[in-house]
Amino acid sequence: MGCSSRINDIQPFHVMALLARAKELEAEGKDIVHMEIGEPDFPTPAPIVEAGIAAISAGDVHYTPAVGLTELREAISTFYQTRYNVSISSNRVVITPGASGALMLALGVIMQEGDEVLLADPGYPCNRNFVRFLSGKTRSISVDASTGYQLTLKHLKENWKPNTSAVIVASPSNPTGTLLAKDELVAMALFIKEQGAYLIVDEIYHGLVYDVEYDTALNLYEHRDIDENIIVINSFSKYFNMTGWRLGWVVAPEKLVKDMDKLAQNIFLAAPTPAQYAALAAFNEETISILEKHKEEFKQRRDFLLPKLKELGFKIEVEPQGAFYIYANCEKFSKDSYKFAYDLLENIGVAITPGKDFGSNKADTFVRFAYTTSIDRLAEGVKRLNNYLN
Amino acid sequence: MGCSSRINDIQPFHVMALLARAKELEAEGKDIVHMEIGEPDFPTPAPIVEAGIAAISAGDVHYTPAVGLTELREAISTFYQTRYNVSISSNRVVITPGASGALMLALGVIMQEGDEVLLADPGYPCNRNFVRFLSGKTRSISVDASTGYQLTLKHLKENWKPNTSAVIVASPSNPTGTLLAKDELVAMALFIKEQGAYLIVDEIYHGLVYDVEYDTALNLYEHRDIDENIIVINSFSKYFNMTGWRLGWVVAPEKLVKDMDKLAQNIFLAAPTPAQYAALAAFNEETISILEKHKEEFKQRRDFLLPKLKELGFKIEVEPQGAFYIYANCEKFSKDSYKFAYDLLENIGVAITPGKDFGSNKADTFVRFAYTTSIDRLAEGVKRLNNYLN
Repeated sequence: MGCSSRINDIQPFHVMALLARAKELEAEGKDIVHMEIGEPDFPTPAPIVEAGIAAISAGDVHYTPAVGLTELREAISTFYQTRYNVSISSNRVVITPGASGALMLALGVIMQEGDEVLLADPGYPCNRNFVRFLSGKTRSISVDASTGYQLTLKHLKENWKPNTSAVIVASPSNPTGTLLAKDELVAMALFIKEQGAYLIVDEIYHGLVYDVEYDTALNLYEHRDIDENIIVINSFSKYFNMTGWRLGWVVAPEKLVKDMDKLAQNIFLAAPTPAQYAALAAFNEETISILEKHKEEFKQRRDFLLPKLKELGFKIEVEPQGAFYIYANCEKFSKDSYKFAYDLLENIGVAITPGKDFGSNKADTFVRFAYTTSIDRLAEGVKRLNNYLN
Repeated sequence: MGCSSRINDIQPFHVMALLARAKELEAEGKDIVHMEIGEPDFPTPAPIVEAGIAAISAGDVHYTPAVGLTELREAISTFYQTRYNVSISSNRVVITPGASGALMLALGVIMQEGDEVLLADPGYPCNRNFVRFLSGKTRSISVDASTGYQLTLKHLKENWKPNTSAVIVASPSNPTGTLLAKDELVAMALFIKEQGAYLIVDEIYHGLVYDVEYDTALNLYEHRDIDENIIVINSFSKYFNMTGWRLGWVVAPEKLVKDMDKLAQNIFLAAPTPAQYAALAAFNEETISILEKHKEEFKQRRDFLLPKLKELGFKIEVEPQGAFYIYANCEKFSKDSYKFAYDLLENIGVAITPGKDFGSNKADTFVRFAYTTSIDRLAEGVKRLNNYLN
């Protein structure tokens, strides 16, 4: 009594302990190259900052409607039109406290206790913990380079149960940075719709995709009614550099919005008001031009780091096309990536994330590098790795 | 498949539909006296606003630790010392996105699926919906004027089950504004501790208590180890006038903090950063002096409205001592308080909240008045009520 088993089933982020150790070392005067952090190192663009300050100064700090400011829902709707050439009614857009709030609403309205949710391993660890938190069951499906670390229709068919109520995919994916091919997305979405279940698509790294064409899962023109069973999650954290503001959104089928509104009223009342007003400036020309420069910088970092890691002896079988992560096989150096990550931290001051934060599928031979620091610092990290490993 | 029964079990706030209708009437040019809104009408005090703006300008908009900024946890610890003369380690303070986030963490770590949680009816509706959201069961206990609309040890003993894992009380309470007597609190806390369960005390209206002495449930000196089974929830929304910033906190027994940290990492990452920096200015002398003036204004409104409502014929058996609500029996005018609320809105432009938003215990003969508007407006509302009802 008085202690929830759901808590025991939820793993902490191992990287948090590693980060704490990195900070201890820094406090002792050691220089640490941070390649473990999943947060853009760029400041929030000035127009967003200014809009936030203007709103606070004007006293716009009261509760908004639970589904968010109407103007922001409309701005997001317009953004889908401008960027993806797809028409999404602003009524389908619900503003949330981060993508976390979006996933909470999505799972909260579609998942019964005990239902199964399918997701890829490796994958973002919060996703499976959310399912557990809401008393669902996750079925983690091991994915590898052969499918670009993404789920496929074949995976779904092999793992489908009568009580499977949702599938979560991410494109680009964390930790692999890989995209989901559109034909596979369509095939999965059609199958999921046939089963009367839902496809949740995490698009929080949209905007940070390099060299290749990509699209939102809301834009499956030729199969318009798939939308009825697709929920897209997004966030102002990554592309828009607004992490600490805690703002995201969900685009849901119209039939779910009323329930999401009711749930939002109860579980978080509304997303933070200063962040919502600030985000009204997120889509203007000046902001987008700043963000595109940040994106270009991320691309340059990826193009720098990726070949260097390969030269060092890390095996990277699938080119990461987006986000700011490289998921690298480290078995040439260690069969215990957790110990390996601590070795690198203690011996050469290089911080990376061990594979086990993303699941259990070959996690011991993988690590994640984040290029959320400057090329100079990445180069310093590579130099240290080279001296130490080779 | 694909639709959660938890959603069907969660009631929307009826007042939201009423508020929407009130706004329609306003758009048509009607004048509405708002006595339905549970949000202070005062602006966020200037020092808090300035601290928020300074932080945003300085680029302090990145993720904070999941449990919140260390300085803010320390400031809250100091506040307990200053205001209540009780020593609370800052390690026990976890910063959350509003009191909603605090309740989510509290229930998340202590409640198993299927556990029962005891709470008072009438009471704040989100509380029971949170329990349902996390797959627990609520046992609503009808309370009345004889216990000041608060739970008692006798209630707990009569309703306790082997799977009762928590009791939620609120002092001051929403909708009744009544306080929990300290001797009853101690008796309940001791009993709950014996059962190995938890007492969750909602203190979000602390600071807004008029004329009487009161204390935090963390200050049961003579029974210090009760703290091991008490979780206190608080918020910057009400007393501190920071609703839209979305910031609250929980004070938990030290043994639960690690699990709350883990859960916070997963379900909301951290509370909004601008709000956390802003709140660092919430406890300084200048801010407190502003807040105490707001409190005095609330007290004057209560002292104005309470006798007027009685004169009109509403029955108010227990003097509300805090918050900004008066829970009034309206059976002299109607046995259907929901219809009554709409009648008042449509016919005389007075908006109040029907009892059924707070439970089902005699809800049809109660309404809640909120004095979150000026005395002039309250007087206008009283005048209209008098003309219409008498």
